[in-house]
Amino acid sequence: MCLPECHEALAKRLGRRGFLKGAAVVSVGAGLAPASVSAASADKKSFSRVVDLTHTLSPAFPTFGNSTNVEIEVVADYGSAGYNVNRWHLVEHTGTHMDAPLHFIKDGRSTDEIEPVNLVVPLAVVDVRAQTASDPDYRLTPDDIKAWEAQHGPLPDNCCVAMNSGWGAYVATDKFRNPDADNAMHFPGFHAHTAAMLIQERKVAGIAVDTLSLDFAKSRDFATHYAWLGSGRWGMECVANLDQVPVRGATLVVGAPKIKGATGGPSRLLALV
Amino acid sequence: MCLPECHEALAKRLGRRGFLKGAAVVSVGAGLAPASVSAASADKKSFSRVVDLTHTLSPAFPTFGNSTNVEIEVVADYGSAGYNVNRWHLVEHTGTHMDAPLHFIKDGRSTDEIEPVNLVVPLAVVDVRAQTASDPDYRLTPDDIKAWEAQHGPLPDNCCVAMNSGWGAYVATDKFRNPDADNAMHFPGFHAHTAAMLIQERKVAGIAVDTLSLDFAKSRDFATHYAWLGSGRWGMECVANLDQVPVRGATLVVGAPKIKGATGGPSRLLALV
Repeated sequence: MCLPECHEALAKRLGRRGFLKGAAVVSVGAGLAPASVSAASADKKSFSRVVDLTHTLSPAFPTFGNSTNVEIEVVADYGSAGYNVNRWHLVEHTGTHMDAPLHFIKDGRSTDEIEPVNLVVPLAVVDVRAQTASDPDYRLTPDDIKAWEAQHGPLPDNCCVAMNSGWGAYVATDKFRNPDADNAMHFPGFHAHTAAMLIQERKVAGIAVDTLSLDFAKSRDFATHYAWLGSGRWGMECVANLDQVPVRGATLVVGAPKIKGATGGPSRLLALV
Repeated sequence: MCLPECHEALAKRLGRRGFLKGAAVVSVGAGLAPASVSAASADKKSFSRVVDLTHTLSPAFPTFGNSTNVEIEVVADYGSAGYNVNRWHLVEHTGTHMDAPLHFIKDGRSTDEIEPVNLVVPLAVVDVRAQTASDPDYRLTPDDIKAWEAQHGPLPDNCCVAMNSGWGAYVATDKFRNPDADNAMHFPGFHAHTAAMLIQERKVAGIAVDTLSLDFAKSRDFATHYAWLGSGRWGMECVANLDQVPVRGATLVVGAPKIKGATGGPSRLLALV
């Protein structure tokens, strides 16, 4: 999600009650800190190929608020200086990017504070393309997780659970934001009940979506953001190419920016298969 | 290297002859395009732990030109909006960062154009701390490469060759830039002869330094930059923790920014050991 230009409206719409409700969901998972699952890193992992799960970011990349979140300023160019250098002016929550806990917790962890062991994790891809084909407002449910596990076994400890809604293929089209006649967007996300289930009943490092928001577009309370990020875990939005990796068995390397105090930021996602 | 504020002076100092000399070195390696070594990716690699080779970036991070290259602008804060978002104003060549070929080639490849197979590569660490202890203007030589190979075997195909000069430990001190009484910096880098050797006689994807520049600080012609980046390969500067990985056997994952037209940029470097 990225809301630099509409945050005041959101704050008014939600009010303090909405925020406190979100905060209450946070505490549910307090007993399962990400650090508790780091032992999984002791397992030996192997791979033979690399799949890039990152969209190319440019000023034209679609954004939640339909604003331009990236500007590239030329600082030096080869013709006059003998080399090229740019300066970026960039809203953190743009492109394929991380949401750090700090995005939705007052004093939460920033991207630079996430342990490396939680940036190299098993990848579990939940395919909900059949559901979203008929319902762009679909939310990935606890039953979708259970169905995945029935077929592929328990979610691996310290994994990233990624929603493959098919939306990654729409990134260069209007369907990525999918606004209706009233300019309200329609795209899928994680149900807040699923966030709660993964926090309370599984050991998961992060969740990822191929859409612009962890919540479905119709959300007005950002319940999944508040629950999931509020639990101290990371999220990833606008993930690419989820149809090019196995639903189980890949390792996700999250090249999150190590910038002090970053609430998120464009990240290079590479899957090792 | 990062020179946003001094590029005009550099351009005048080098003149066109200097640039053409650099360009001539470029063509030497034209027969060894990085794509030619991508077959190495077919080998199965394994790992059991992660080492973060990235410094934390902040406005206080030392820069080549001693300028402030990072500004963090608060766009939304939790107190008033219910969530936190920042906008970065950031010169690409800052912190632990990539130099893309485009940095020193007029129409070279930008960070987003580097193939993923060249971002997950074997890591070879050449320890020159003994040499730099007595000579901060040391340049890693072809003989240093040969000495490494005599001890550890041939450089792996498609590897990253990293210079461990010990400078990473100085990042929070004046010694990182190490200016003398005349404000001229002194720190180590790769010798241009070494760049030429690795281009012509080995199959190497990238080179990395734990200092502010691929060239040693005293360089006035940036011969290593022009040779190495000019050959179409990437460089990495300000790498951290090179003393925490084995000199051979780790896999480097380069979380380079996938931003269209980027000449480089802060990158998350994770070593898989």
